[in-house]
Amino acid sequence: MRNAIEAAGLGIGWIEGDVGHGPAYRFNDPDGHLFELYYESERYVAPDHLKPALKNVPQRYVGRGAAVKRLDHVNVLCKDVAANRAFAQEQLGFRLYEQIVLDDGNESGAWMSLTIAAHELIYVADYAGLSGRLHHLAFFVDTREEVLRAADLMLDAEVPIEAAPSKHAVAQGMFLYVYEPGGNRVEVTTGTHFIYDPEYEPVAWTQAERARGQAWGVRTIDTFHTYGTPDVSGRVTGPPIPPTSRVPAL
Amino acid sequence: MRNAIEAAGLGIGWIEGDVGHGPAYRFNDPDGHLFELYYESERYVAPDHLKPALKNVPQRYVGRGAAVKRLDHVNVLCKDVAANRAFAQEQLGFRLYEQIVLDDGNESGAWMSLTIAAHELIYVADYAGLSGRLHHLAFFVDTREEVLRAADLMLDAEVPIEAAPSKHAVAQGMFLYVYEPGGNRVEVTTGTHFIYDPEYEPVAWTQAERARGQAWGVRTIDTFHTYGTPDVSGRVTGPPIPPTSRVPAL
Amino acid sequence: MRNAIEAAGLGIGWIEGDVGHGPAYRFNDPDGHLFELYYESERYVAPDHLKPALKNVPQRYVGRGAAVKRLDHVNVLCKDVAANRAFAQEQLGFRLYEQIVLDDGNESGAWMSLTIAAHELIYVADYAGLSGRLHHLAFFVDTREEVLRAADLMLDAEVPIEAAPSKHAVAQGMFLYVYEPGGNRVEVTTGTHFIYDPEYEPVAWTQAERARGQAWGVRTIDTFHTYGTPDVSGRVTGPPIPPTSRVPAL
Amino acid sequence: MRNAIEAAGLGIGWIEGDVGHGPAYRFNDPDGHLFELYYESERYVAPDHLKPALKNVPQRYVGRGAAVKRLDHVNVLCKDVAANRAFAQEQLGFRLYEQIVLDDGNESGAWMSLTIAAHELIYVADYAGLSGRLHHLAFFVDTREEVLRAADLMLDAEVPIEAAPSKHAVAQGMFLYVYEPGGNRVEVTTGTHFIYDPEYEPVAWTQAERARGQAWGVRTIDTFHTYGTPDVSGRVTGPPIPPTSRVPAL
Repeated sequence: MRNAIEAAGLGIGWIEGDVGHGPAYRFNDPDGHLFELYYESERYVAPDHLKPALKNVPQRYVGRGAAVKRLDHVNVLCKDVAANRAFAQEQLGFRLYEQIVLDDGNESGAWMSLTIAAHELIYVADYAGLSGRLHHLAFFVDTREEVLRAADLMLDAEVPIEAAPSKHAVAQGMFLYVYEPGGNRVEVTTGTHFIYDPEYEPVAWTQAERARGQAWGVRTIDTFHTYGTPDVSGRVTGPPIPPTSRVPAL
Repeated sequence: MRNAIEAAGLGIGWIEGDVGHGPAYRFNDPDGHLFELYYESERYVAPDHLKPALKNVPQRYVGRGAAVKRLDHVNVLCKDVAANRAFAQEQLGFRLYEQIVLDDGNESGAWMSLTIAAHELIYVADYAGLSGRLHHLAFFVDTREEVLRAADLMLDAEVPIEAAPSKHAVAQGMFLYVYEPGGNRVEVTTGTHFIYDPEYEPVAWTQAERARGQAWGVRTIDTFHTYGTPDVSGRVTGPPIPPTSRVPAL
Repeated sequence: MRNAIEAAGLGIGWIEGDVGHGPAYRFNDPDGHLFELYYESERYVAPDHLKPALKNVPQRYVGRGAAVKRLDHVNVLCKDVAANRAFAQEQLGFRLYEQIVLDDGNESGAWMSLTIAAHELIYVADYAGLSGRLHHLAFFVDTREEVLRAADLMLDAEVPIEAAPSKHAVAQGMFLYVYEPGGNRVEVTTGTHFIYDPEYEPVAWTQAERARGQAWGVRTIDTFHTYGTPDVSGRVTGPPIPPTSRVPAL
Repeated sequence: MRNAIEAAGLGIGWIEGDVGHGPAYRFNDPDGHLFELYYESERYVAPDHLKPALKNVPQRYVGRGAAVKRLDHVNVLCKDVAANRAFAQEQLGFRLYEQIVLDDGNESGAWMSLTIAAHELIYVADYAGLSGRLHHLAFFVDTREEVLRAADLMLDAEVPIEAAPSKHAVAQGMFLYVYEPGGNRVEVTTGTHFIYDPEYEPVAWTQAERARGQAWGVRTIDTFHTYGTPDVSGRVTGPPIPPTSRVPAL
């Protein structure tokens, strides 16, 4: 893989290791995001007060906050979705499961995975036409109920909710989008849309199909398409303020 | 109660009975909706193939469609919320749990109940300024998961979804709004916000508070505020077509 | 009500008030449990850091631990279920919704409520033939998922689980039973089996029907029928140790 | 793979294809179960009335019955767990995630997978010491709520429930076990315990650990350890009758 990356002129070099992992090979994707590949990892050993009752989980379930279980996927913005999608498939071995292809033939989104999980790496077109930015990080919870519960928690904890819980059409995941204090978008997600088919034909969504909104018809909030980090909106600090209604609601 | 209603000049008279119930006293609310009061009811006796395993439920659970359990509440539109709210409280014995009071002092919504349930009868201001119309009927399911499941079913059954599953700020109920073929709005709901306090102080929401949208910040769809039945929009048939997005969504 | 209680020779007298409530009238039920009746209550006012986002709930949702919402019901043991059940109905105004009537005609359980909720006060026959003891206190959560989540939490927090989550046949509630450190049985429960019928015919379960176990056929653990508090088993401290399997499980 | 299987003397030969798939290579596992390997598959094309609203799912969600989504795993009984486990690992490429190792060193269960899913093929020791038998087939639903719902459905549909919904300690899956009319055990399951670690150290459960019952302490029903199909109990027809309680339950 390193040879393929170097041949593409995107290699950077080795680092000795970092928190939780051993030596890592650094490189860029075509859009300039910094990636690392490593194999050796440090397995978490729970301290005594966090030892679980069942030995097949790493730690006691304490249920604090949204109680996310693990990182689920990363969604990065880029100038050229097709180029980055091809790099991830050809140089990194990702499989393409879903994509958005605009009427003019340009790709505006690509959902890829190394496993049966519906997505692990997503590229989406950067609305501002910039490079190297982040759309969101997504953390997994086991059930849809936990996504709803997370919304209840975020609301009362005054964490700005960008998009309330609902279901994605693409990849069928349940979502909740919030902004962490630094302004990055964070998703709480769950979903069990698995791809077992070794010759899965990628699903290509058209512009018209995407205009129907999310799975149950929810219109995606505008900032979801326009805001990324680092922010370039000129605001001094903070993510956009989620919109409020224009008419008294029931 | 009949005396109080007649004194208000809203009485109509008795009917002998109807499907499932005995003699009923008919009257109007101030807005002109037809109401009936009855006591004698026919209890449902399940046929053999629908006898339940447990004797404390009326019928076998078959899980067909959204599998709603019972009628939960009725939401009717009216010209004058305050007048109808007062009638329901004073002549019918309802308790007022929540309401919307506009900045000019006018009431635009009243949530009332005869039990600890958060609402059984709701009055909301008619956007078109008409009388006697319906906002929606709401049917209860036991869990939030069933509301999400109902949305999955409605989507694939091509039932128009007006508002995807989310949580109401008022009364804390989970909702899903669809249109039945005749154009009436139907809600699939659940919730366990109970009022045990015998001197509960009604919660009065201001215009500014309602402008924040539903519980998790979802902006209520415009038709939810403007559409009622019978429809007066001049369209030949059918409820409004739910809106679609304006920009390609992710 | 006080007159009726005094006529029954069970009155004790007034106290000036206690934490959270004003003057209360004390009396015994026929089995000798201490009861209090009061009207004046102190409404909870959340401190600033616990003010909720929505004004119709008393406090911010923090989701700590099982995050129970309120007391749901009390289940007390007694020598004579019929006598205590009759007292609760006739002197206190409870409605009887479900009961167990043994083959010899004796009552061994009574589920009663003042509202549409399926139970608020339960009497169950004391296996040890004693008086004044407690079977359990039950706390409500909104969803069945929260009952499952509570079991995950209790397991890892080393709280003894007497009965894992399942569904009651009587009253249709979801349950989880644990022991608090003092040895009292505590239930985490939810359920939306409501009784709207003003002339509801109480459901009487027979011995044979109850022998089928809980709703989905789970055999009730023996201690559930035999253990109450204060404990009289002669063990120095602590509730019974929940049983373990006899054969290697899969 | 075929060469490895033939070298082990377990090969049978090719068939031309079967319902839904192309040519398949047949062989036995060491215990004598018939296996097939194939690559070419027929993709399901939904008829018009079952076309889904979203193009990334094969069919409209109709929600009928337990509405299982797909086959999740197969659990087969065998005489010699270690031999079959080794065959699956070495000849078929399965990864071992969890196992039960008895105090005498014998293996009594092995949970294996080709993907990040916690199990796809399970071998468990046959209590009767026979070969070629089935423990159960497991079908996946998306949520724990759907497992509970399935139990409600099975109860009222008079499908014998062997084990009510609860959570497995091994592999952390939610389960419900029933018997289909032919007597085979069928599981309705869900779970999101994924193994992303490429060097996952298999979890080995001891006899003492397994004696604690399922995750929340539920004692596994005896038939779960003793019954398999084809049945050899001498009963003329049908699976064992699930046990009932011995004492009146609450």
